[in-house]
Amino acid sequence: MTFRYNRPMFEYKILASQGRARAGAFSTPHGELATPVFAPVGTQATVKVLTPAQVEELGATLVLANTYHLYLRPGDELVREMGGLHQFMQWPHPILTDSGGFQVFSLAQARKVEKDGVTFKSHVDGSMHYFTPEKSIAIQENLGADIIMAFDECANPNDRAYIPKAMERTHRWAERCLASKTRTDQALFGIVQGGVEPDLRTASAKFISSLPFPGIAIGGLSVGESKAEMYATLDLLGGILPEDKPRYLMGVGTPEDLIEGVRRGVDIFDCVLPTRLARHHAAFSPEGRLNLMNATFSHDPRPIDATCTCYTCWKFTRAYLRHLISAKELLAGTLLSIHNLHALIRLMGNIRAAIIAGTFEAQVPDWQRQWRGNAEREPK
Amino acid sequence: MTFRYNRPMFEYKILASQGRARAGAFSTPHGELATPVFAPVGTQATVKVLTPAQVEELGATLVLANTYHLYLRPGDELVREMGGLHQFMQWPHPILTDSGGFQVFSLAQARKVEKDGVTFKSHVDGSMHYFTPEKSIAIQENLGADIIMAFDECANPNDRAYIPKAMERTHRWAERCLASKTRTDQALFGIVQGGVEPDLRTASAKFISSLPFPGIAIGGLSVGESKAEMYATLDLLGGILPEDKPRYLMGVGTPEDLIEGVRRGVDIFDCVLPTRLARHHAAFSPEGRLNLMNATFSHDPRPIDATCTCYTCWKFTRAYLRHLISAKELLAGTLLSIHNLHALIRLMGNIRAAIIAGTFEAQVPDWQRQWRGNAEREPK
Repeated sequence: MTFRYNRPMFEYKILASQGRARAGAFSTPHGELATPVFAPVGTQATVKVLTPAQVEELGATLVLANTYHLYLRPGDELVREMGGLHQFMQWPHPILTDSGGFQVFSLAQARKVEKDGVTFKSHVDGSMHYFTPEKSIAIQENLGADIIMAFDECANPNDRAYIPKAMERTHRWAERCLASKTRTDQALFGIVQGGVEPDLRTASAKFISSLPFPGIAIGGLSVGESKAEMYATLDLLGGILPEDKPRYLMGVGTPEDLIEGVRRGVDIFDCVLPTRLARHHAAFSPEGRLNLMNATFSHDPRPIDATCTCYTCWKFTRAYLRHLISAKELLAGTLLSIHNLHALIRLMGNIRAAIIAGTFEAQVPDWQRQWRGNAEREPK
Repeated sequence: MTFRYNRPMFEYKILASQGRARAGAFSTPHGELATPVFAPVGTQATVKVLTPAQVEELGATLVLANTYHLYLRPGDELVREMGGLHQFMQWPHPILTDSGGFQVFSLAQARKVEKDGVTFKSHVDGSMHYFTPEKSIAIQENLGADIIMAFDECANPNDRAYIPKAMERTHRWAERCLASKTRTDQALFGIVQGGVEPDLRTASAKFISSLPFPGIAIGGLSVGESKAEMYATLDLLGGILPEDKPRYLMGVGTPEDLIEGVRRGVDIFDCVLPTRLARHHAAFSPEGRLNLMNATFSHDPRPIDATCTCYTCWKFTRAYLRHLISAKELLAGTLLSIHNLHALIRLMGNIRAAIIAGTFEAQVPDWQRQWRGNAEREPK
């Protein structure tokens, strides 16, 4: 006879905290997520150029996939037919899907935004589509991630006149997402919007916190505002959002942003930056961001970062990486992706350990020094 | 105190044979090579899109790298400076380099072929270069592979008037390669040429066999002649080449060619076909060569080959592979390369086991049936 102990699904436990920084554990159908955590992005059901085995080896626990892209290609119905996203992409650990909202407004250049939903044009084949909150939830239920997102409208933070409208719509849609959800094995997170306006952010945080979401996402940041504005907004939210729910800062970031985010109470991060940098031949390093295409590396026998424990730094010289790039060999992208993802995941592991050890704030200046020179949000 | 037993370097032992098929072991500075063996090609010091760890995992023991490419980029001096090819590309097992001859005549469109050497134009930057037998050996000594090749001239098998000249030149160059070699930790193989002319092949096989090479390569096949001509040439050579040296059939190939090659006494094979097919979305399978881009696979929940034990077939559906190809995700190339290389390496492992078990000839019809439909030497 086997005895099965059913832990409550989506329980969030804080194991230790220091200031607003928390080390926690969030239970999901595909395992317990140690937080704070950085999630590599697997937009089209693949973390670009890496096998799931490699993603696992570099220490990732949570992977993000994009609802907008998977809806268009290969289609959420097909993914469901294939047993859901975990089975389809062979990622046995937790998965998070976004709502499609951000991409509908950015990539697809939404054609018409109405009370009920958004009409948009596919970036793949130009076909027209219509998303509502209910549709986004239905797609995400087909995909079957552990953590799913409410459908929201992310407005340009510089379009201050429009932000209240987008926020109000996001609130109505959040209620509709909650109402339309049918699966009990997915944690639906609400999304706080409101740009960088303190009054709107306060109102949005209070409203979203009042709804029965098991976790809360912070949207509309790292989309054009300054770093000071982002940190100020996180400072504000840190005092409003409920302590007992995990907080997810969407689309962030850089090593510096992870450190500053955790300090302000964020538990979950994702960003395409590490893999995008890899495609631009760039690597995070304590010397600042290195572009390995640079001829100065052609005879350099050192690894990217001598203190790094990733496969790439364990095995390969800068000279070899520079050769691969120069010879247009795709292995360069694989090895740089491994390094860049590992750098953020390892930083998160160190941050979590420090919170538990009570040394987090004392170590922040060291990390800031170590990762100074890696603050840019885009490849150069 | 540690006791070190020094095995003779480059000892070739035949463990079992059946007809002309042999199962052997060839000792090299980087380990004993179980033969017959199929070597993946790592032209530019990387088996395309795979990490060395992945190449190791799929069962490869010997990897080929190209002297011509590495001389041009990153340069053999640089590779030597970085500790040699094993260290540079992090392949700890045996490596074989070709002489550059084949590429000088094909890729670089040799400008002038003289008694002493060949003037050619780089396909990378159009610069002019000059290779002699001595130069090829010097480059290969800088690269530092375990098995290196004599510089040869591979003539078009249909240019029957020119073949004797190219063969004679190859013989003179073979002697000069032997004379100019300085390293004792590399096995220099001579190359038999002579097109598909029985008299010339006989003369070339006898001459090359008379020189003190620890192994013999068969060049000038799979370059435009028919399969019947190739097999007839191998039949002829099987009766002439010395039994006690390993035989390497350069640039071959398909599953069928491996089976037929082993039957005719070949021990070592290499070919770009498995990785090139992968880049064309094609996979070896018992159903024939599959093109995974085909829409018929979009809902197919089966692996490429249900009898295959590779990572790709263990984990992923045809529907997922088709999605990756359709979404232009590079992981498709990685997963198909793993499958195609594994298919040939596994076939070789089965062939070797059968030779040792004495069941090789009895199993040939099964393998022929299984791999029927995978005979084409090029992607369609």
